[in-house]
Amino acid sequence: MNPVVILVRPQMGENIGAVARAMTNFGLSELRLVAPRDGWPNRKAMEMAAGAAHIIEGVKVFASFAEALSDVQHVYATTARPRDMEKLVMEPAEAMGQLTEQQRGGYACALVYGPERTGLENEEVAMCNTLITIPTSPDNSSLNLAQASVIIGYEWWRRQGLPTPAKALPEVAPREDWNGFFSQLEGYLDEVNWYRVADKKTIMWHNVMTMFLRAQWSAQEVRSMRGMLRSIWERRRLNTD
Amino acid sequence: MNPVVILVRPQMGENIGAVARAMTNFGLSELRLVAPRDGWPNRKAMEMAAGAAHIIEGVKVFASFAEALSDVQHVYATTARPRDMEKLVMEPAEAMGQLTEQQRGGYACALVYGPERTGLENEEVAMCNTLITIPTSPDNSSLNLAQASVIIGYEWWRRQGLPTPAKALPEVAPREDWNGFFSQLEGYLDEVNWYRVADKKTIMWHNVMTMFLRAQWSAQEVRSMRGMLRSIWERRRLNTD
Repeated sequence: MNPVVILVRPQMGENIGAVARAMTNFGLSELRLVAPRDGWPNRKAMEMAAGAAHIIEGVKVFASFAEALSDVQHVYATTARPRDMEKLVMEPAEAMGQLTEQQRGGYACALVYGPERTGLENEEVAMCNTLITIPTSPDNSSLNLAQASVIIGYEWWRRQGLPTPAKALPEVAPREDWNGFFSQLEGYLDEVNWYRVADKKTIMWHNVMTMFLRAQWSAQEVRSMRGMLRSIWERRRLNTD
Repeated sequence: MNPVVILVRPQMGENIGAVARAMTNFGLSELRLVAPRDGWPNRKAMEMAAGAAHIIEGVKVFASFAEALSDVQHVYATTARPRDMEKLVMEPAEAMGQLTEQQRGGYACALVYGPERTGLENEEVAMCNTLITIPTSPDNSSLNLAQASVIIGYEWWRRQGLPTPAKALPEVAPREDWNGFFSQLEGYLDEVNWYRVADKKTIMWHNVMTMFLRAQWSAQEVRSMRGMLRSIWERRRLNTD
């Protein structure tokens, strides 16, 4: 029950192609067009839809928005401007969360985008259930169709995932390994009297341990460090294996 | 302290323009380019950057990635493939959450994108702290530069309005300091032929950079490390002050 994507009176073939392409990036497959300005099929749409030919070929064209919606239960429209209607307005993340719940409950949903220049007519906005507004900087709030569909697609896709697997934590060396490294380093630093002032040794050494532990090295990385240090200490050129 | 955006060896002027445009949508303003393929300025970048001329005009061009990072403390790179390095990998939402905390704590952060066709070199990936992977459908996991920058920008922007409690962050040395440390260490390791097998040097060195960067040392700690290393290298007993 993935949502269908509906472009209402799209103007540029390139944009239809770019939307199809973003759909393949984010696992969407059904594209509907309402009265595309340049008719259908459209060569530019096909050229722009690299890797999404199957979507372009499967496009269904409708004469009116109402017909395109006939089997749909909940309609989401992305609009730049808030309209003067008591519609629910959501940001993409919240909207795609709600949509995901709906599709899991068996709803047929649609993601709708209006014409590039003018956006949806008020009549069409009235036919939608939920409006999506993508937050943008006030300096430039105009997102093109391709950009908007990428963001909505992304927000939809990232919710489809699988129950997220417990996050793998990086492997960190056991303290036994760290202690070996610290003894080695401390030995060298003692020999060269790196601390200079005996009184300061304790605090300096604590700082040294702290700065290394923060790295959360694996056992392999601690071994690497020990090898590097030993080589540098011995200043003996190692043979090529 | 908004993050800077860095494009490493970008190929197409159109993409530079599209990134600049997305930056204005999402409140970002500083764009740096490392060795753009077609030189700079670039007419196509300017044409594509409708409404973002000020960003294009303010672009700073660098000869190397290291130079572009010199005043940066934490580096985020968007990469398609997970690399064989022990780097932290995050999705955009989590990464931009972390970045927002960091910038509120005063860190200079960078958002990095590699060349369109090839992505970043491993050497460059090794220089980054956190990798960002945008979740996509396995059917088409290739996002172009413009799409990726829209998603990252969007995830960044939508966190800027939220009141996040300022979290005290550890001070992290700017890359200039790290580069000095890395040159010193690399010099010693070269002299002792620590790598043994010439073929392995590159991968070993990337792992070394990665394991140290993970420690997030302050400028003071990097200096400490450099002093320790030098003393160990010279094996000369220091005088008590």
